[in-house]
Amino acid sequence: MNSQPLILLSDEELSQRLTHVREAMGALHADALLVADNANIYYLTGRVVCGYIYITSSGSMECFIRRPNHLTGDYLHYIHKPEDISAKYGITPVEALALETSDLPYDIIMRLGKALNPGQIVNGSEIMRRARAVKTAKELEMIRTSGIKQARVYSRVPHIYREGMTDIELQVEIERQSRLEGCLGLFRINGSSMELYMANILVGDNADTPTPYDFAMGGEGLDPSLPVGCNGTVIKAGESVMVDANGNYTGYMTDMTRTYAIGGELPAMAMKAHQCSIDICHALARAGTAGTPAKELYELAEKMAAEAGLKDYFMGHRQKAGFVGHGIGIEINELPVIAPRSRDILTTGNVIALEPKFVIPGVGAVGIENSYTVTEHGLELLTVMPEEIISLT
Amino acid sequence: MNSQPLILLSDEELSQRLTHVREAMGALHADALLVADNANIYYLTGRVVCGYIYITSSGSMECFIRRPNHLTGDYLHYIHKPEDISAKYGITPVEALALETSDLPYDIIMRLGKALNPGQIVNGSEIMRRARAVKTAKELEMIRTSGIKQARVYSRVPHIYREGMTDIELQVEIERQSRLEGCLGLFRINGSSMELYMANILVGDNADTPTPYDFAMGGEGLDPSLPVGCNGTVIKAGESVMVDANGNYTGYMTDMTRTYAIGGELPAMAMKAHQCSIDICHALARAGTAGTPAKELYELAEKMAAEAGLKDYFMGHRQKAGFVGHGIGIEINELPVIAPRSRDILTTGNVIALEPKFVIPGVGAVGIENSYTVTEHGLELLTVMPEEIISLT
Repeated sequence: MNSQPLILLSDEELSQRLTHVREAMGALHADALLVADNANIYYLTGRVVCGYIYITSSGSMECFIRRPNHLTGDYLHYIHKPEDISAKYGITPVEALALETSDLPYDIIMRLGKALNPGQIVNGSEIMRRARAVKTAKELEMIRTSGIKQARVYSRVPHIYREGMTDIELQVEIERQSRLEGCLGLFRINGSSMELYMANILVGDNADTPTPYDFAMGGEGLDPSLPVGCNGTVIKAGESVMVDANGNYTGYMTDMTRTYAIGGELPAMAMKAHQCSIDICHALARAGTAGTPAKELYELAEKMAAEAGLKDYFMGHRQKAGFVGHGIGIEINELPVIAPRSRDILTTGNVIALEPKFVIPGVGAVGIENSYTVTEHGLELLTVMPEEIISLT
Repeated sequence: MNSQPLILLSDEELSQRLTHVREAMGALHADALLVADNANIYYLTGRVVCGYIYITSSGSMECFIRRPNHLTGDYLHYIHKPEDISAKYGITPVEALALETSDLPYDIIMRLGKALNPGQIVNGSEIMRRARAVKTAKELEMIRTSGIKQARVYSRVPHIYREGMTDIELQVEIERQSRLEGCLGLFRINGSSMELYMANILVGDNADTPTPYDFAMGGEGLDPSLPVGCNGTVIKAGESVMVDANGNYTGYMTDMTRTYAIGGELPAMAMKAHQCSIDICHALARAGTAGTPAKELYELAEKMAAEAGLKDYFMGHRQKAGFVGHGIGIEINELPVIAPRSRDILTTGNVIALEPKFVIPGVGAVGIENSYTVTEHGLELLTVMPEEIISLT
């Protein structure tokens, strides 16, 4: 039986990530951290396993694994149930134990608390969110690769389009192109309340249908069990086609939107709003350097939209999103959050998506979304592709 | 601005579902239930919304909604935050409040508990799981529709196959056919630990790679961030091709597996194991009537596998799954569970998938999976399609 190493990260890479985690543990006064969430386990090992990873503020990392059963490694202990961590492996109670209280169900946190018996439970989800917000060079390389592949798929959309297509027919072909390019399909979203399948493609006024989900744009969806995105609208001249598709090609994703239209032309107000979106992205890319408060980027975007007379259409029309950008990486909604009340400060190594979009009644959604990494000199673009409205013919 | 009714269910349908919920509330001694999980909200309204539904053991249902903002209805109140439920709408504390403690994060349960201040919190996830286990006629109709569409896609696999294809190339074309047939894509799994993208297609020995997820079969996957299913194996004569793809066409899903092979032929032991899987399904379909303990079905399946000399290969080889079937509906892992320690009793209106599968080293996974509804006279098949190994040429 061929076994495999549990840890797929180099020693140096693991060490960097543990440094990020321990810094965040220090800020939240945690003596130890127990991680069980798939995205966080992937961050700490380079693979998804079913089990728990235990990190103390000073000592080594210990891994307690249930499945798969063919892994090996120095830090690895196989367990049947979480109670084994304390009962079999002698993990003793600490004063402040961090558990992923924003990610794991109440019942699991209660069970882990009982098994590990800490003085108090602190928010391990917040620790991992902070640690993961600053990407290592290796993570950034994986995100860059996703950006290149995602842009390649978007550049093929005009070749995929056929006259008379509906939004969902176009989406199915974009899904296929994405998968053939290596898209992993899975779209990790932090929290259980947001759901999406593979892409949000919005044609015409469908973009103005409010959804239950906290995404930047709406759409009725094909079914009330998944009310977002495509609803079967036929693509017509004078209506926009906004493509915002899954960019997870490496386990680390980019987020990117481009707007298409038959002949590349839309009514004047939509063309103006689209240019405003491009201008906002360029202005924010110059303004966003390490040390910039995230909310200042939001305020600048909102101000530019208002000065262009487009306030009513900015970030939605019938229902608006409360942000203009968000961190990305393993999940689509990481830190920092680019929103009016965000307390996040941009840091070198953050990776963010900016999506200043507009919904113009009678035309649809326009604007772009790009992914960037934060540097000391501004934002560096990771989703390189023409930004103007792209012609479908 | 065109508004829409919140509740998409008929009065009679809603009444039936509330009766199921109130029966389960009685069994768990809950005075009131607050629901927030998307799958449970869909059950109670016929659509997904962001908000909370409050049900008392006797009175009416009240809906507290955050998004979307264009809904109307008698029971509907718009809120900004969960604290509004008690502060603005005068919901007074009850002794035993059921919250979805197995589904919602610890932080959210703590916040809801503080806002609604009950004497004690009981497990609302369990209430909803029990209520949803017995399907209404309308739910069953939606599941039947999914079964018909899923079988239609599976019947096209021989036409999709081309010589020299890899597992993932076949999967991409099955995904496309599924989507064109109306598959919604989203694959709802209860709990946050299991992840899958659209289908699990296993070719040859890749089926024997253990995964972290609690699915019946394994697979290395394309990337360690999603280690399940296809790994790029080329389809060859003498190796099995097991197709277990997303059956969510209506919001309610069927679950179905068929095995394919070039020329329809595999080595003798694999042919025997495949026939054993068919025999087990037929035997369980006769044995499984309303009132049958679920674990008896598991024991019968295990006994038949052992009598055929196939015990080592039953439900996996290097790593085994601990069940032979599971309830399905809005999610892929509902009640009842067909497993050795299950305490569930089959009830008229349950819908279950049975998947007695085998992994034969050097050949791959064989066997079938069907979806059934429980009747007083046995299980009624919902995924009608030939069960023998299907020829790819």
